[in-house]
Amino acid sequence: MMKDQSLWIRKVSLSPPSLKDNTADVDRLVHALKTELETRTIEIDLPLARRIPHLLRIFEYEVACILFRGSESWHLLSVKSPSDPRITAGLAVDLGTTRVVLRLLNLLNGSVLGETAFDNPQIEIGPDILARIHFSDMDKGLEKLNALILGGLNEHIQRLCAESGLEPGDIYALSLAGNTTMTHLFMGLDPHWIIREPYIPVMNRMGLYLAEDLGIHIHPRARAIIFPNVGSYFGGDLMAGILYSGLNRREETAILVDVGTNAEVVVGNKNWMIACAGAAGPALEGGMSRMGMMAGPGVIDRVEIDPANLGFRFHTINDQRPRGICGSGVIDLAAQLFQKGMMDIRGRLVPARCGNRLVEENDMRHLVVVSAEDSATGKDLRVSQADLDSLIRSKAAMYSILETITMAVGLNFNDLTTFYVAGTFGSFINPASAITIGMIPDLPLERYESIGNSSLEGATMILTGKGGLQEMDEIRNGITYMELNVNQDFMNRFSAAKFLPHTDPFRFPSVLKPLGT
Amino acid sequence: MMKDQSLWIRKVSLSPPSLKDNTADVDRLVHALKTELETRTIEIDLPLARRIPHLLRIFEYEVACILFRGSESWHLLSVKSPSDPRITAGLAVDLGTTRVVLRLLNLLNGSVLGETAFDNPQIEIGPDILARIHFSDMDKGLEKLNALILGGLNEHIQRLCAESGLEPGDIYALSLAGNTTMTHLFMGLDPHWIIREPYIPVMNRMGLYLAEDLGIHIHPRARAIIFPNVGSYFGGDLMAGILYSGLNRREETAILVDVGTNAEVVVGNKNWMIACAGAAGPALEGGMSRMGMMAGPGVIDRVEIDPANLGFRFHTINDQRPRGICGSGVIDLAAQLFQKGMMDIRGRLVPARCGNRLVEENDMRHLVVVSAEDSATGKDLRVSQADLDSLIRSKAAMYSILETITMAVGLNFNDLTTFYVAGTFGSFINPASAITIGMIPDLPLERYESIGNSSLEGATMILTGKGGLQEMDEIRNGITYMELNVNQDFMNRFSAAKFLPHTDPFRFPSVLKPLGT
Repeated sequence: MMKDQSLWIRKVSLSPPSLKDNTADVDRLVHALKTELETRTIEIDLPLARRIPHLLRIFEYEVACILFRGSESWHLLSVKSPSDPRITAGLAVDLGTTRVVLRLLNLLNGSVLGETAFDNPQIEIGPDILARIHFSDMDKGLEKLNALILGGLNEHIQRLCAESGLEPGDIYALSLAGNTTMTHLFMGLDPHWIIREPYIPVMNRMGLYLAEDLGIHIHPRARAIIFPNVGSYFGGDLMAGILYSGLNRREETAILVDVGTNAEVVVGNKNWMIACAGAAGPALEGGMSRMGMMAGPGVIDRVEIDPANLGFRFHTINDQRPRGICGSGVIDLAAQLFQKGMMDIRGRLVPARCGNRLVEENDMRHLVVVSAEDSATGKDLRVSQADLDSLIRSKAAMYSILETITMAVGLNFNDLTTFYVAGTFGSFINPASAITIGMIPDLPLERYESIGNSSLEGATMILTGKGGLQEMDEIRNGITYMELNVNQDFMNRFSAAKFLPHTDPFRFPSVLKPLGT
Repeated sequence: MMKDQSLWIRKVSLSPPSLKDNTADVDRLVHALKTELETRTIEIDLPLARRIPHLLRIFEYEVACILFRGSESWHLLSVKSPSDPRITAGLAVDLGTTRVVLRLLNLLNGSVLGETAFDNPQIEIGPDILARIHFSDMDKGLEKLNALILGGLNEHIQRLCAESGLEPGDIYALSLAGNTTMTHLFMGLDPHWIIREPYIPVMNRMGLYLAEDLGIHIHPRARAIIFPNVGSYFGGDLMAGILYSGLNRREETAILVDVGTNAEVVVGNKNWMIACAGAAGPALEGGMSRMGMMAGPGVIDRVEIDPANLGFRFHTINDQRPRGICGSGVIDLAAQLFQKGMMDIRGRLVPARCGNRLVEENDMRHLVVVSAEDSATGKDLRVSQADLDSLIRSKAAMYSILETITMAVGLNFNDLTTFYVAGTFGSFINPASAITIGMIPDLPLERYESIGNSSLEGATMILTGKGGLQEMDEIRNGITYMELNVNQDFMNRFSAAKFLPHTDPFRFPSVLKPLGT
């Protein structure tokens, strides 16, 4: 295991007490551990201290100790037989607004013992952050939201352990990364002020807790690391993402983007980091309501239009009959429509090119993406002009956010050596298509790197020794947060970006070229 | 308040959050406190963190904070209105085997708000340490002993608070000093091995706890400082005594003696300290069972014998009719008997000098100290030859302990610039009498200093800012403990000291002189 891990397992061999060395039992163990770990302070909870004399005698002064390394001191969590076969486990949690992912880890070697995901049970209260915050203002509202997520976590922890042949008591450390509101609701902190000017959380630096004090039933002395927030709109999930991407450890400047309901962006390197967040996602994840939005079986995630006959080709998830289209599919579709002249630079469907795919309904143009006979639903899968307008606004917002933050530190897009795209969005998006519609800058494709569920990966890293609490603090302290809501430059840039690919097409040479040929 | 106190009250004035400064509520408060206290770490329990946004708004960002200063970090305990009239109190506890003393303190100025004492409720299980340790080996024995002392403490804390117009929730810090076994029973630590070779406690370095976790019901976030032990026979009460005496801060070498059932001794100065403990007290506190032993109303604490007519004069506590004799009275009596030739150098009563005060009973000589008609009990108050033999052994043990520890560091008694005598024994003993029987060395009387209940005073100091946690650790780490049970020198010295004042009378020139005149 590496030097900066959170949980340590140490075997120590003590000389039994004698008249010549009558050091007290607990002091004897602590002294050996201090020497072994080269530390000044080791804290032991009273319930464990009470059992140590018996444990030392049962195990004949040869014991395996499980320790948690906090920022200021070490905590002894358990004393076992050195031959105890039970696994010392940790749990990484990605606490999403919609989906919660749990990963069970063997902390001795970092291997994954199991993984599970479940819908955030708070969805029954409200699908999004805003609805839940409003609910939390009601009598016992916060308590109910808190109980829902704790209930869900405890239930699935138990299941996951059972599946892996473990018990919850085998989990000695938990790390949790979520957005600011989810973290507040998990910790029972009132999110009321997050959505009210001047938009402040109860706290950003979360730190270290007894899991039991948070209401999580694993080992009674297990510690919980909660990833800190940078602000109301830049949460611990992004902090975990930064940790995982390694952006904070690199000499060269990179950018990290996570797109959900909000787009959250960090630009920086080992010396500095700047972050911002803005509403950019509705069209990508939630706006196409009629067609369905979430990735899932039968959802279109790739679209191609044959330049010869303008025929549509799809890829659906699990290769099932199409029943909807997800964010990456919509971006593909829009890029193809634009490239094939079926959509103009203002994002308007072009009747002359769309032909009989265009239908009029409620005084609005719709494009039939999949006809009723080909779809899984028995109905046309359509995209309305309004849907496409919404997409244009989203992509304009995204590009403006990226431009504003990059310019704010005096850089051009070309200075960004790597462009990390996090989240499920990042896993499915086709960067070429996103460039075609001017959503992301026209950089060489190899600079784009999808890093998957970086929130879960960051939470895993802090447990398995590839990232430490100290690094987490350094990231948190090193980030400058830029408020976009009060930024006039951002508004100007947003207007200019509402064209395909942009008012200034020379920013997208790779998009211009194919049109020119 | 001084710089090294445990509990701090700080008023802070925060600028309210704004769009230009949207630091989170808790972080805002922590930042201000860190600046104010020049510290790196401030820890806040979750239940308090949850309430901070509301408290800051109610008090309009002007608050008074109560903080506890631990060894590694600060702990925020409470956030109040700066005009809150409630007193911030602390509680010092002297946890004796027989008697428990509580002192309630105003932590803003160190003043005493109230004091109370009660018999240790564990007496119902056994009067002494040994009986209680044996009881703790039985099923649920430790739990019962623990519950008894916690029950007693909580009940008397409530009473003391009520008498002082406070509530237990006003107490934010507790410090407790007791011998090793009492501390173990209070903390629920198994004392089993304390009395079994090689005589080791569960732990010596007690440290810092939530009072609530120890079962003490005061403020839910109140911290408890438990004085550490040096070993099984040198407990936290002595540590507190050292802190109070200031022996550890002085350039000159001094000695501190506490006599209860054991005699506990420390010799040292600011550079080094050596400690030992030995059985020395039975005759002083418990041996005179027939006459009663504890100081109390009607108990003889001073004795004088008229050299002209050998008539006895007494002083009794509260000037009531005599009903017993306490340790200091016995020492006075023995010194007077020896000086007036009524007892020889081997401690034998001399019939020729004792006259009709001498009675024979069960083949043993007894001295009538108070006749039936003068006593409060209507019976003679007598001292038997066996009682006196026991006293001689006690005084020999005491002198040998003092001699062994002093010689062990290459000093003579004369190098000891101050001789602190702690405890109730110290408060009542007449040093001249103790010197006369050779119990303590023949030093100028002004070197003897009685320091009263130094355990309670030390516990007070650590709360009121005249001694810090760090100093406590330094004392603990600076002490070398010397085992007397395995010391042959001690046994030789003990034999030589079983004469009055000593086999070598030239060690006691001040005792020789009056005899010589």
